Amino acid sequence: MKNIWLGMLILLAITGTATAKSGSVSEDTEICLECHATLHPGIVQDWLNSRHAKITPAEGLKKGKLERRISVSQVPEELATVTVGCAECHTLNSEKHKDSFMHADYNVHTVVTPKDCATCHEVEVKQYGKNVMSYARTNLVNNPVYVSLMNEVNGTHAFKGVGSGMTLSPPNQKTNADSCLFCHGTKIEVTGLRTVESDMGDMEIPTLSGWPNQGVGRLNPDGSTGSCSACHARHRYSIEMARKPHTCSECHKGPDVPAYPVYMVSKMGNVYSTHKNDWDFQAVPWKVGKDFTAPTCATCHVSLLVGEEEDVIAERTHQMNNRLAWRLFGIVYAHAHPKSPDTTIIRNKSGLPLATDLTGEPASSYLIDASEQEKRRRTLSAICLSCHGSNWVDGHFERLDNTIKTTNEMTRTATNILLTAWEKGAAKGLSQNDSIFNESLEKKWTEQWLFFANSTRLASAMAGADYGVFANGRWYLSRNTHEMLEWLHLKLKNE
Amino acid sequence: MKNIWLGMLILLAITGTATAKSGSVSEDTEICLECHATLHPGIVQDWLNSRHAKITPAEGLKKGKLERRISVSQVPEELATVTVGCAECHTLNSEKHKDSFMHADYNVHTVVTPKDCATCHEVEVKQYGKNVMSYARTNLVNNPVYVSLMNEVNGTHAFKGVGSGMTLSPPNQKTNADSCLFCHGTKIEVTGLRTVESDMGDMEIPTLSGWPNQGVGRLNPDGSTGSCSACHARHRYSIEMARKPHTCSECHKGPDVPAYPVYMVSKMGNVYSTHKNDWDFQAVPWKVGKDFTAPTCATCHVSLLVGEEEDVIAERTHQMNNRLAWRLFGIVYAHAHPKSPDTTIIRNKSGLPLATDLTGEPASSYLIDASEQEKRRRTLSAICLSCHGSNWVDGHFERLDNTIKTTNEMTRTATNILLTAWEKGAAKGLSQNDSIFNESLEKKWTEQWLFFANSTRLASAMAGADYGVFANGRWYLSRNTHEMLEWLHLKLKNE
Amino acid sequence: MKNIWLGMLILLAITGTATAKSGSVSEDTEICLECHATLHPGIVQDWLNSRHAKITPAEGLKKGKLERRISVSQVPEELATVTVGCAECHTLNSEKHKDSFMHADYNVHTVVTPKDCATCHEVEVKQYGKNVMSYARTNLVNNPVYVSLMNEVNGTHAFKGVGSGMTLSPPNQKTNADSCLFCHGTKIEVTGLRTVESDMGDMEIPTLSGWPNQGVGRLNPDGSTGSCSACHARHRYSIEMARKPHTCSECHKGPDVPAYPVYMVSKMGNVYSTHKNDWDFQAVPWKVGKDFTAPTCATCHVSLLVGEEEDVIAERTHQMNNRLAWRLFGIVYAHAHPKSPDTTIIRNKSGLPLATDLTGEPASSYLIDASEQEKRRRTLSAICLSCHGSNWVDGHFERLDNTIKTTNEMTRTATNILLTAWEKGAAKGLSQNDSIFNESLEKKWTEQWLFFANSTRLASAMAGADYGVFANGRWYLSRNTHEMLEWLHLKLKNE
Repeated sequence: MKNIWLGMLILLAITGTATAKSGSVSEDTEICLECHATLHPGIVQDWLNSRHAKITPAEGLKKGKLERRISVSQVPEELATVTVGCAECHTLNSEKHKDSFMHADYNVHTVVTPKDCATCHEVEVKQYGKNVMSYARTNLVNNPVYVSLMNEVNGTHAFKGVGSGMTLSPPNQKTNADSCLFCHGTKIEVTGLRTVESDMGDMEIPTLSGWPNQGVGRLNPDGSTGSCSACHARHRYSIEMARKPHTCSECHKGPDVPAYPVYMVSKMGNVYSTHKNDWDFQAVPWKVGKDFTAPTCATCHVSLLVGEEEDVIAERTHQMNNRLAWRLFGIVYAHAHPKSPDTTIIRNKSGLPLATDLTGEPASSYLIDASEQEKRRRTLSAICLSCHGSNWVDGHFERLDNTIKTTNEMTRTATNILLTAWEKGAAKGLSQNDSIFNESLEKKWTEQWLFFANSTRLASAMAGADYGVFANGRWYLSRNTHEMLEWLHLKLKNE
Repeated sequence: MKNIWLGMLILLAITGTATAKSGSVSEDTEICLECHATLHPGIVQDWLNSRHAKITPAEGLKKGKLERRISVSQVPEELATVTVGCAECHTLNSEKHKDSFMHADYNVHTVVTPKDCATCHEVEVKQYGKNVMSYARTNLVNNPVYVSLMNEVNGTHAFKGVGSGMTLSPPNQKTNADSCLFCHGTKIEVTGLRTVESDMGDMEIPTLSGWPNQGVGRLNPDGSTGSCSACHARHRYSIEMARKPHTCSECHKGPDVPAYPVYMVSKMGNVYSTHKNDWDFQAVPWKVGKDFTAPTCATCHVSLLVGEEEDVIAERTHQMNNRLAWRLFGIVYAHAHPKSPDTTIIRNKSGLPLATDLTGEPASSYLIDASEQEKRRRTLSAICLSCHGSNWVDGHFERLDNTIKTTNEMTRTATNILLTAWEKGAAKGLSQNDSIFNESLEKKWTEQWLFFANSTRLASAMAGADYGVFANGRWYLSRNTHEMLEWLHLKLKNE
Repeated sequence: MKNIWLGMLILLAITGTATAKSGSVSEDTEICLECHATLHPGIVQDWLNSRHAKITPAEGLKKGKLERRISVSQVPEELATVTVGCAECHTLNSEKHKDSFMHADYNVHTVVTPKDCATCHEVEVKQYGKNVMSYARTNLVNNPVYVSLMNEVNGTHAFKGVGSGMTLSPPNQKTNADSCLFCHGTKIEVTGLRTVESDMGDMEIPTLSGWPNQGVGRLNPDGSTGSCSACHARHRYSIEMARKPHTCSECHKGPDVPAYPVYMVSKMGNVYSTHKNDWDFQAVPWKVGKDFTAPTCATCHVSLLVGEEEDVIAERTHQMNNRLAWRLFGIVYAHAHPKSPDTTIIRNKSGLPLATDLTGEPASSYLIDASEQEKRRRTLSAICLSCHGSNWVDGHFERLDNTIKTTNEMTRTATNILLTAWEKGAAKGLSQNDSIFNESLEKKWTEQWLFFANSTRLASAMAGADYGVFANGRWYLSRNTHEMLEWLHLKLKNE
């Protein structure tokens, strides 16, 4: 084992990236590294490249208010003067972790959670708790409407012969984890123990269900929700990564929510692609014009931004929705943002947990009002104004409002066709107590808002035009209503 | 206000990117910067990074013929010895700008246009006037066939009950600006005045309709067309950006014209993605092999290229079509390039402003002839030959010719099915004075040429194979004709 | 001509990238460069940037076992002490090349083949011969099932009037070369001679059919198969390119095999996009964590990987499938990897050259068994374990196994509907001796496995979730079976 540690020391000595004084790695972490540097070289080197390996919390606390990346005023004494290594996170709060186990005389847990991270980054974790993303799993699996969609998408259908149609077997846990819950978050639980062979002899470690997962609304073995690693990938936890749009693309690229492809064809994305190598993605605070010359996703939605004279243009937020007036992502219509990130509490006029009725009427008492919308828009506009005149910014948002209106109208048209089909018995819906996602016409209706209206709105919001026209935009909004109506006419004729 | 200017001076002093001697910024621009450096730090820093902020036109004029980026032989005296700053462009020709307004004692206009840019870049602006892109708006909104397509795509449809079908409300100006005209160009007009609060007191500024917009065929308040910023984004006006493919992706990524995705999966795109960080995107002239080792969009379509000994391989062109034998983008068929960039003057055999008849017959008198096609192909081939043997280049273009022929045949097949449907009353078309885009079958027909044939031809032209097969290519050309025929048979049975 | 050579010498002198001592370029290559440096500056500069231009085989042979890029123990004497230039490859083995011709007193061939490359890279060429990619053309054009698919996709259909349906003209050679064979590989043959004008007078050179092509299973004029340039593009032959994912995207981006887009939205792709500029893509061997911090395609599928202490984590392989337990790419179902890369020898229960029956039953005697699958999975897992714990890795592969099972079930459902349609006469299939790809229902069935099941499995294998849900994933698997069944019911009603 000695030669492993020797190798490790050499590594620490020669690597130009590790500037930490050797004394600042904790003894506990040194013991972890003895084996894991060899077992998982990718993890260890990633960590060596991280800020966590280069600076102690005590040093971080000395930074000025704007420069500081740590948001508590004090860090527990035993953590303050060592760098943030393996042991500091994986043995922290282990008594509260159901995934903890004794390992080389340490009480270790596999899954590091926002609660653990809050030891140093408390403000960000609290803000994130108000972000609808932290409820991404809850809002999905505890909403019967969405569960019915999830079952129809992820389940397996079996053909039972002409006339009999198909039977649906609901998806197992593994399928859901590989599908919707990959981004929304799984529930991680200890299901037993397993024996792993190692140079140190056999070891018993917990078997985790729902693992691996880094979904934004993950339910963790310590009862917390979320995964910081979703955007700040372990074990580098890089602010650079969180600021580059590729992180967002992990979940926001498909036809249901094409934010990343829209951004990339916008002028902003073009500037990013062209000039990004000249930008400083590490600087805190992030100075407009100097550190970057066009926004990334994080710029508008998360980052602390300052101007030439360190004047604050936008405060850092991990809540995100405090910069957003609308929820563009229509389920079923675009609407004012919900007040609470927990959307399972919403009841629309029909009693369903949806922010609007099927006819588009918003469940207003659960949604922010016009003055809060205006306030959030001003917060976002302040960022736009760093690079654009007021004429530009106002014109942009007027178009977005118009697009929200017209896309909602096109969703309404599709819904009217569907409601008529249900009424005339051409399909089975709510009043027949049937899933609203399991028939051909219902799937077309779903694509109307989930793919086409959503794409069109995102294209409008971020000025990536073709995603509002031929790339899943208005062309399809129009084509789809024609096909739905044609379907209905044909069905009624053939009944 | 002083402290702002101080901050600005400091900025100028410390930034490594601004190498201009302080004396070379005009006094007028200094006055602009006093406020705008703080108000819009992104704009100002972008400009500080630009060549405009680093060199005066007089210095630019001293460069050799090949190195020169300025294309006039003389620049007005008052502009020659200062860098090109805010005032130089935004007060230039203001008397001809309907969007001009008095602002801090200056007659300022918001929208800088090709006519303004022509003060230094006259040749490029003239060339661009012959580019079909400069007519992108005109050719769309003044062609009744395309207007009917635009209305069907962007309008809102309302369902009026079974049997009644749907009614179409034409799109408003904002929707068109957010959709087709985003790339094709809006018409920018002053619609009134608005009051803006500022540290200097309230200010009256014009309200612009059609703004923001940077579409390639924009109609400007000074009567000019186009927007240089479409490819050379303000306020950096970077040749690097125009040479990288991301600029083109803003409008050429969707299924209607997937030039960018095709390029990116070609060998050329692969080399670009792999080695671009080693290339020089600033060098003028652009030396093949030394400055870059694979073409980008600009290389083949625009740039001045030289070989090892500064021998000119291709002259710079902003006309672009003088390197192109074919118009691949079929409306409805691929055809020889139109002689004039104004395609509204074309009349096909049926009297429609389309370059071919619906049966594919070209409106030959409006199109370049075979010898002009051959000349343009030779111009383009000279670039290919920098990296490929003649066997390679000839083989490539023979395949493209073949693909143009076969995709036109497949468009003809789809058209024949449509014509039969019209004839048999299964759909309503030209002879019924009905839109040719507003029925399900017509939409399938449109996708045949607009998506599938076009994608297949672009894939052939730039060797990005799957866009000619399964990624909206031949698979869909075949599938779509089968579905169209099946639709027709079913419709005739169910009439 | 002298001044060309002078220019060339200057070039060699001033370019910082060419570090080769002038003596190491062979005299033969110097003669090539005299003209070609000017004729094809892109080719020559690319080569000057290559390792081939900077090091002689003799120097390469002195490297240690892990560092060595050359895999023979000895190189022919006349090649050993000169750099690998034009003449070294293009005159090598010319007597075995049907594309050879006398050119400036040399017996030159245009198409450099794996057999030529094997002079120095023998092991890689041998391994590649066991890679199914080297049979990509053979397995396609010699399998009647796939030929029938290729004809239906690439052929041109003509409409013959209502009732008569369409006639299919099979694709010509140029279309196939522009389509499927672009990636799978053409057959390159000399079809005659052509005269080319040059400064040296007219020259006769062979005309090649199937050229240009760099498909992975290309049939070469020396009887060999494959094209090293598919991944190591000429004339740089860069290991950096082969290690970056863009090379793979050339053929693996479309809906049939979206490996590249899946990778790019995975955490691995995110880390690559964010941090790639800090990585060393040239290092041999490739050290996990130090040279790179997340895998690219090559990392998992090809590269020689070592840990901190140069311990070998994975041996280099150009066979690739020795790291793969499953063939995810279902034709028609995902199945254990075939034993032989030549899949034309397979016969399923029905006698067709497919690895499974239409009902999903594997043609087991032609496929690797469970223990070989386990061995290959362990080989791949060793790479995963460099950055992930065993819980993570096992959990990941359990989900993949589950997804293979459920997607095969959904393919089976679609197949059952198709079989019923054939049986009931709603479509014509195998027992009617008709193509199984030429009807609307058959095309839907094809998309079920070729697009949707395949996308879902790749998304699972590389953790790029939305490609298994809304981006051509499970949403479509479900929608498609509903539409197929609806089609069948309607068809039976309308017969």
